[in-house]
Amino acid sequence: MSIKLTILGCHSATPRINAFPTSQYLEINNRHFLIDCGEGTQRQLRKYKVGFSKINHIFISHLHGDHFYGLVGLLATFGILNREKELHIFGPKGIKEVTLLQLKVSQSHVKYNMIFHELSSKKSELIFEDDKVTVSTIPLNHRVYTNGYLFKEKEKPRKLNMLNISGYPAIDRADFLNIKAGRDVVLTSGEIVPNSTLTIDPPKALSFAFCSDTIYKPDIIPIIKNADLLYHEATFLADREDLAKKTKHATTKQAAEIAKQAMVKQLVIGHYSGRYKDISVFKKEAQEIFENTALAEPGEIFSVNE
Amino acid sequence: MSIKLTILGCHSATPRINAFPTSQYLEINNRHFLIDCGEGTQRQLRKYKVGFSKINHIFISHLHGDHFYGLVGLLATFGILNREKELHIFGPKGIKEVTLLQLKVSQSHVKYNMIFHELSSKKSELIFEDDKVTVSTIPLNHRVYTNGYLFKEKEKPRKLNMLNISGYPAIDRADFLNIKAGRDVVLTSGEIVPNSTLTIDPPKALSFAFCSDTIYKPDIIPIIKNADLLYHEATFLADREDLAKKTKHATTKQAAEIAKQAMVKQLVIGHYSGRYKDISVFKKEAQEIFENTALAEPGEIFSVNE
Repeated sequence: MSIKLTILGCHSATPRINAFPTSQYLEINNRHFLIDCGEGTQRQLRKYKVGFSKINHIFISHLHGDHFYGLVGLLATFGILNREKELHIFGPKGIKEVTLLQLKVSQSHVKYNMIFHELSSKKSELIFEDDKVTVSTIPLNHRVYTNGYLFKEKEKPRKLNMLNISGYPAIDRADFLNIKAGRDVVLTSGEIVPNSTLTIDPPKALSFAFCSDTIYKPDIIPIIKNADLLYHEATFLADREDLAKKTKHATTKQAAEIAKQAMVKQLVIGHYSGRYKDISVFKKEAQEIFENTALAEPGEIFSVNE
Repeated sequence: MSIKLTILGCHSATPRINAFPTSQYLEINNRHFLIDCGEGTQRQLRKYKVGFSKINHIFISHLHGDHFYGLVGLLATFGILNREKELHIFGPKGIKEVTLLQLKVSQSHVKYNMIFHELSSKKSELIFEDDKVTVSTIPLNHRVYTNGYLFKEKEKPRKLNMLNISGYPAIDRADFLNIKAGRDVVLTSGEIVPNSTLTIDPPKALSFAFCSDTIYKPDIIPIIKNADLLYHEATFLADREDLAKKTKHATTKQAAEIAKQAMVKQLVIGHYSGRYKDISVFKKEAQEIFENTALAEPGEIFSVNE
């Protein structure tokens, strides 16, 4: 079980020479997701050698330009690359109309099927599930309707402890599914063999929470509790809490406070305001509250393996 | 009088690591125009140190993504930068609706006034004029409605030859406007002083023609005749004339043929298809027909001074 997060862009507001708006590429349990798609994302995907064809699901947090102006270009490029696989796009209500109108006026005739999943609920909901992964929304509070996303690996069945099992000749292969599911075995003698003797723990199911953009919102803590990796926006340094509140963004210390209270394993912060030239202070401030904090930077990769 | 053309992007189809879709920044007679605006244009503007506030007029050739997907991001950035000056946007019918919808869903509340000039005529027309410059359309033939643009400096009045004028004490300052306008002077003695004695030629009025995207279309030649600088697309090398025709693009030799027949001073080609790794062959082929050909490359500047 593993998580690999590639930062494609992590700055706020306007693209600049070395500042790319939000986009992340997430590999989790062999699923490949794109999260947000600011202008220039497709170029960043190429720069960091992400295979375009691997992406089948795109999650857009909100419809501010720095989180979705790169979407239509990417969709058009998929068309130019003769994509045929269907593509799922999750995002706030309105994303479908604006995207399809852009593709229509630019006469981008794509062959693949685009399936829009428009979100409008203000409660956390399960929006994607397959045999390996689930994705749920994390309702955030920003100037426009915004969701974070919680990506979770599914629990794997327990692993058979074949050495121990071989000590019980009465246990048959037919019992294995029950044992993997965590059940004890009752032998014909009436003896109960506890599951803990017959199995070992499976690799831990990992989770990644993406939270951007948002004001400091402690009520998301139960949703992201114990996440292995948390990306939380930190647009401002701690001394501009007033401005963060006004613009519905978070500060370094607020992001760290969320990480601490949610007891996540690692925090990554980003979405730095363009006013800051030196972002190293962001890390220092957050670490005063939550030690295991890292800075998002384009091309940076964060991996968790179990 | 001068022209300075900065290539911001000059590749076709999809943005790649070192391939930027079409955009050019034109300075002509102290006017500053942006021509086309593919994805990533605002980053290229920053890279080549173009002052955003200088741009008051944007000309979009056609609504294929590689020529306008960067427009909405630039307009939103103008808003973030607190622009107040009005902005004129020229482009095909449809550009207003799609642009305003994108700004609306992203809640980009800009303070400045956006004035759209939607084009639909298939004949060349004068679309902009002030005291220094005129801009006319060059109807092109591509898969969608497309215009090139002809930017022309206005003729300046003739310059007074003060040395010669001082030889005619009867000529008064009150006559100067007439002399500058090219008129002869009739002295009270009846003597006619020819204008050529009293004036010298003003600097030549320069012109730049932008022609992209288009199939080989010789009927544009009268419009762009004698231009000082011509940018003409050359998506393919000469051996793919079949593909150029099919996709309504031009080849190196076709672009050069237009330059030759129009007797322009210099040709710049670009809009190279992504299939070519080495673009030096483009120049070689075009030069077989038109010697003064240069290759567009990001950051390249073409200047004409008179």
